[in-house]
Amino acid sequence: MHTVPFFYAIDLVGTFAFGLSGAMVAVRRQLDLFGILVLAAATGVAGGMIRDLLLGDLPPEALHDTWPLAVACLAGLCGFFFGPLIERLNRPVMLLDAVGLGVFAVAGCQKALASGLNAPGAVLLGMMTAVGGGVLRDVMAAEIPRVLREDVYALAALAGAAIYVVGLRLGAPELVITACAVPFSFAIRVASVRYGWKLPRAPWS
Amino acid sequence: MHTVPFFYAIDLVGTFAFGLSGAMVAVRRQLDLFGILVLAAATGVAGGMIRDLLLGDLPPEALHDTWPLAVACLAGLCGFFFGPLIERLNRPVMLLDAVGLGVFAVAGCQKALASGLNAPGAVLLGMMTAVGGGVLRDVMAAEIPRVLREDVYALAALAGAAIYVVGLRLGAPELVITACAVPFSFAIRVASVRYGWKLPRAPWS
Amino acid sequence: MHTVPFFYAIDLVGTFAFGLSGAMVAVRRQLDLFGILVLAAATGVAGGMIRDLLLGDLPPEALHDTWPLAVACLAGLCGFFFGPLIERLNRPVMLLDAVGLGVFAVAGCQKALASGLNAPGAVLLGMMTAVGGGVLRDVMAAEIPRVLREDVYALAALAGAAIYVVGLRLGAPELVITACAVPFSFAIRVASVRYGWKLPRAPWS
Repeated sequence: MHTVPFFYAIDLVGTFAFGLSGAMVAVRRQLDLFGILVLAAATGVAGGMIRDLLLGDLPPEALHDTWPLAVACLAGLCGFFFGPLIERLNRPVMLLDAVGLGVFAVAGCQKALASGLNAPGAVLLGMMTAVGGGVLRDVMAAEIPRVLREDVYALAALAGAAIYVVGLRLGAPELVITACAVPFSFAIRVASVRYGWKLPRAPWS
Repeated sequence: MHTVPFFYAIDLVGTFAFGLSGAMVAVRRQLDLFGILVLAAATGVAGGMIRDLLLGDLPPEALHDTWPLAVACLAGLCGFFFGPLIERLNRPVMLLDAVGLGVFAVAGCQKALASGLNAPGAVLLGMMTAVGGGVLRDVMAAEIPRVLREDVYALAALAGAAIYVVGLRLGAPELVITACAVPFSFAIRVASVRYGWKLPRAPWS
Repeated sequence: MHTVPFFYAIDLVGTFAFGLSGAMVAVRRQLDLFGILVLAAATGVAGGMIRDLLLGDLPPEALHDTWPLAVACLAGLCGFFFGPLIERLNRPVMLLDAVGLGVFAVAGCQKALASGLNAPGAVLLGMMTAVGGGVLRDVMAAEIPRVLREDVYALAALAGAAIYVVGLRLGAPELVITACAVPFSFAIRVASVRYGWKLPRAPWS
């Protein structure tokens, strides 16, 4: 996917949005500049690092290719200097984050299939690529990962990855499938925020 | 070990018990259905994933073989629907968990030796395989891992792995050693619960 | 670096100091003897494990070479028995910890370059080697990693690794660079404690 400049560009957009969410958590937890940069970088690139670790593609891309890391650190600087502005822009930031969610899920799934994983494993790894950065962000902020508590976030990633795998099985061209799977994931995420979709809690709790 | 169907079956029993413990922590922390499934899956299969990561056997078995993951998710569903029942069955669940502890410790140790680790490294990796899922469960629930605070849990895993390594050194047949090490680990764990064995705290604290 | 006995020795000194810090966190959080040993071991060797995981050098050195692990566990025992004494010795322990910081940063950076990483990736990996153990210690203690909240700790590691990379580029002999980079990292860390250097928080928070 990274060979196509357009996808690389939206991958960086997603990384930036993820980095912003990391920076805002860090600011809320009163971290200093270094802590903000680390949490922004972790949220932006850790999902891909986890993917590469689990696929054995080492050292991970994020240590070879400096751009995503630089973009995530830039997001950290934006959070440091313009936090209140970013909070007011929470709607566009959510949209960019949803773009990142879809792109990371599909890219993770694609790389997993290329590494020889079967369909369920690849869909799972796609989801882990998409949500892994946010999980690490929250673990380092000593909080229960937000993805476990709220919203249809991981499910949107899962849906995008599943569409991708099913599309490939049906023999559709890869570019077409990607152009369906990413927007599908995006749409589910945005709709879930718009309409307040929630997953059920245990019926007896 | 997985080539022997009997061991594969008790491995799945242990995975199920681990998954139940993950599901119960998730329910207690008010997570939604997705959070419950993730914590059940993580507790059930993350120990083996950590083992495979550290041994460089990538992608890890848990992404290739769908059964353990499916069994752990089934445990998550059980926790979601029948939580109060499972809480009342805490004694049998503890017994199944102790089976899993022994099986995972020995399987981890065995795979580590096959990968060329020396005896101390293999025993350590066996223990990490057995307790790793529970550690991840508690880290994701933003709690100090239970294994660090209470009970003779990790020590039981350590004992099973140590018996296995010593038995191999003495030249006993592998099947016999496994048939000793797993019940030994199980017995120590169960006895520690039955008699309330505790490890000491710092004498001056 | 490990081929030079002198460096191996100060590596063990750093591991011991890191282990002490893990043990003291464990004692403060009321963990039992096993929990203290695990946190001491994790703080002492997890940085190197993370380095080896990300470089794909598996199984990691810490599972092959028993000495660092044994030294870290010894530090755990010291914390268990002599905690109050170690607390009174917090100045010399800080100095040893700063030695470890510099050694781990340079050793991590060196190994990363040998694995073919480019300069920014190697500097980053050097820093992760130096602070990774402390991050895992705090995550397992359910706290926000101290390195994100306070002091010029990670920056000192970063500086040491950067000096090393720049020195190599300038063609200086490796032994000379190492003999500059480690003390430089040490000096920044110690000066930051001595003069209370702090990094800024977000200006608007």
